[in-house]
Amino acid sequence: MSKGSNNNPSRRQFLSGAAVAGAGIAVAGAARAGDPLITEVQQWARGLGEGVDATPYGLPIRFETDVVRRNVPWLTADPISSINFTPIHALDGTITPQGCAFERHHSGAIELSKDDYRLMINGLVDTPLVFTYADLERFPRQTHVYFCECAANTGMEWAGAQLNGAQFTHGMIHNMEYTGIPLRTLLEEAGFDTSAKWVYVEGADASSNGRSIPMEKALDDVLVAFKANGEALRKEHGYPVRLVVPGWEGNMWVKWLRRIEVADAPVESREETSKYTDTLANGVSRKWTWVMDAKSIITSPSPQAPIRHGHGPLVITGLAWSGRGAISRVDISKDGGKTWETARLAKPGEKMALTRFYLDTTWNGEEMLLQARAMDETGYVQPTKAQLREVRGENSIYHNNCIQTWWVQSNGEAENVEVS
Amino acid sequence: MSKGSNNNPSRRQFLSGAAVAGAGIAVAGAARAGDPLITEVQQWARGLGEGVDATPYGLPIRFETDVVRRNVPWLTADPISSINFTPIHALDGTITPQGCAFERHHSGAIELSKDDYRLMINGLVDTPLVFTYADLERFPRQTHVYFCECAANTGMEWAGAQLNGAQFTHGMIHNMEYTGIPLRTLLEEAGFDTSAKWVYVEGADASSNGRSIPMEKALDDVLVAFKANGEALRKEHGYPVRLVVPGWEGNMWVKWLRRIEVADAPVESREETSKYTDTLANGVSRKWTWVMDAKSIITSPSPQAPIRHGHGPLVITGLAWSGRGAISRVDISKDGGKTWETARLAKPGEKMALTRFYLDTTWNGEEMLLQARAMDETGYVQPTKAQLREVRGENSIYHNNCIQTWWVQSNGEAENVEVS
Repeated sequence: MSKGSNNNPSRRQFLSGAAVAGAGIAVAGAARAGDPLITEVQQWARGLGEGVDATPYGLPIRFETDVVRRNVPWLTADPISSINFTPIHALDGTITPQGCAFERHHSGAIELSKDDYRLMINGLVDTPLVFTYADLERFPRQTHVYFCECAANTGMEWAGAQLNGAQFTHGMIHNMEYTGIPLRTLLEEAGFDTSAKWVYVEGADASSNGRSIPMEKALDDVLVAFKANGEALRKEHGYPVRLVVPGWEGNMWVKWLRRIEVADAPVESREETSKYTDTLANGVSRKWTWVMDAKSIITSPSPQAPIRHGHGPLVITGLAWSGRGAISRVDISKDGGKTWETARLAKPGEKMALTRFYLDTTWNGEEMLLQARAMDETGYVQPTKAQLREVRGENSIYHNNCIQTWWVQSNGEAENVEVS
Repeated sequence: MSKGSNNNPSRRQFLSGAAVAGAGIAVAGAARAGDPLITEVQQWARGLGEGVDATPYGLPIRFETDVVRRNVPWLTADPISSINFTPIHALDGTITPQGCAFERHHSGAIELSKDDYRLMINGLVDTPLVFTYADLERFPRQTHVYFCECAANTGMEWAGAQLNGAQFTHGMIHNMEYTGIPLRTLLEEAGFDTSAKWVYVEGADASSNGRSIPMEKALDDVLVAFKANGEALRKEHGYPVRLVVPGWEGNMWVKWLRRIEVADAPVESREETSKYTDTLANGVSRKWTWVMDAKSIITSPSPQAPIRHGHGPLVITGLAWSGRGAISRVDISKDGGKTWETARLAKPGEKMALTRFYLDTTWNGEEMLLQARAMDETGYVQPTKAQLREVRGENSIYHNNCIQTWWVQSNGEAENVEVS
């Protein structure tokens, strides 16, 4: 019998790199001759399973109960004004299911029905307008996949390696397919003053979470969205309507959107003065730092996803993104940044959306200092923590997009560490 | 004050087409001066919402309880061997959330843990292999969005217009981002005989649901998948591992995949002889009709999504797909196929994935016979029901990809009808 794949270089490459595990699989296969899971008819093949009437809306199987959002109680005084984290260490691909997409609330997630929903556009407009939800459904829609990253993602890592897991260091991010109306369309419906340089957007919750957005961005790609991943937004993501501000910090993606005021100046609200500014080493704070710069994270192996198998083939995988456009390349280092290999992108990068990368490699128990480094289409290269601290100091909370290091030990366990 | 949009043709077009509704929105805005929803501080702005610790895994808000899978009890003798339907009439965009993605079982959905999972490759191979779930995680992965359509989708419509809603006529379809291993990689690992022209795939459930797949397809784009939309497959979709056979009928996407046998001939199993063949008018049955041809459906307006608003702007939207490649164009008719307008695609069509289309139009209460007609990159044009019957007769169940007609009445209600 001849192998059908003798002329396939990808297979030769995999097998040559994977001789030990190839043998491992064959040995295990032999050992499994007596494995009752393959020699006996299993209980699940002897009877009937669950019918199609059982779960009108399905949930994950009970074996996956660890793949959930988690909050860190000591991070904030109260879960009402707090954050939880997407379990990115356990996901693959790029889409984040709504059910495990991180939440950030300033006064808790409110329940607001479509019937009770109103959206006002006022300020420097010809005709102030109030839209019902049904009104919004009549405007031309767009559908796009975008990431939403909290400005504070990785914010606990400025002073050191603090949180042990990709979910906690990098899980304030999700990536969904949004359907909505370009904000431009609604502004044009109201007839906005061309001298107006800003819009102020606020939500219907008690915090109102108001933010000023330059008119240039408002007219570019901002969406007034009502669907995510095909279905209605979840309560915790702003049902029935939220703002989608591609590539910009999550705080501006106002949930339960109730008002858009066209203005000639920014409001300088609480959310853009006392918060969401970046304090430098000399005490000066930068404001209007809206864009989320290029960033990446290895999701597996990682502290919550250690290597549990033997030596041989290992898949290193993770996510990369940039608020300035598409990811063009991701490199991976196993030695803390001394040498780099270019990862394989699952598909060409898309603007302001998560990109999945893979490095198909071999691991024989050597310790690794694993790092990923993202590049975007503008030529920007994700900085090291040292480079970022040089410019920004250590007083910041927001916009930490430095290269992350996982120390993978010979037993496959991984830890969050810093390399100098 | 001058409008910022005077030079924007899209706005002029929308307003000129939407004069009545534009006025309608303005009138409603005026009427809403006394609307307590905008003049008073609402209860949801007076207190706190739910904290981030409330729902580790979120579900849709209670107002969306109608957006669920539904089964039709009279269709089958028992829900154990039956089907339910994706609520496509209520979704937008292209991604189908797993929770409301249709199910089809032949002996019910089984519960199979990763620890208990085994995948055997045997038959005409150098080395029969048995993989554990952990073994599979070590092979190079791919991530792709594909639609999965049951061959029987629209199957009740051969003899007439029977089921009143897009969910029931066209809801045996879903579209998810899958992560998995190319089947080719596993076949190469086992070393397959180049004379082998088929693989036979079967599931771990009692039905086993075995199907024969030509080796050419097996080596092309078939995936052994373990994630959908980023997270683990749901129980009802084959947790922990299913086959993904892009563009081909859903029955071949074997769930709870347990065995792949490399063979020199097809097995001619129950699932490819007594079922999943297409009986013509003369009684002869075609077999091996695997590919799902180009098809489309208007999801809104539709019987379950009638027009509830007044005259003026109307968004007509729906889905199109082809098992032979990318959708290149979708046309919409309001008069039962006499005249056609080209719809706007949300983004360029992707191979074997759902494409969302929109037609931004005006409706002033006239009756409509709404139809969509898909074209794919091969030049194939979706046929009328008459054209399909001419070739296929009326004895078929499977592969009904004819143009669907919704009769939209002056009150906005819609019905499933046939046009001659």
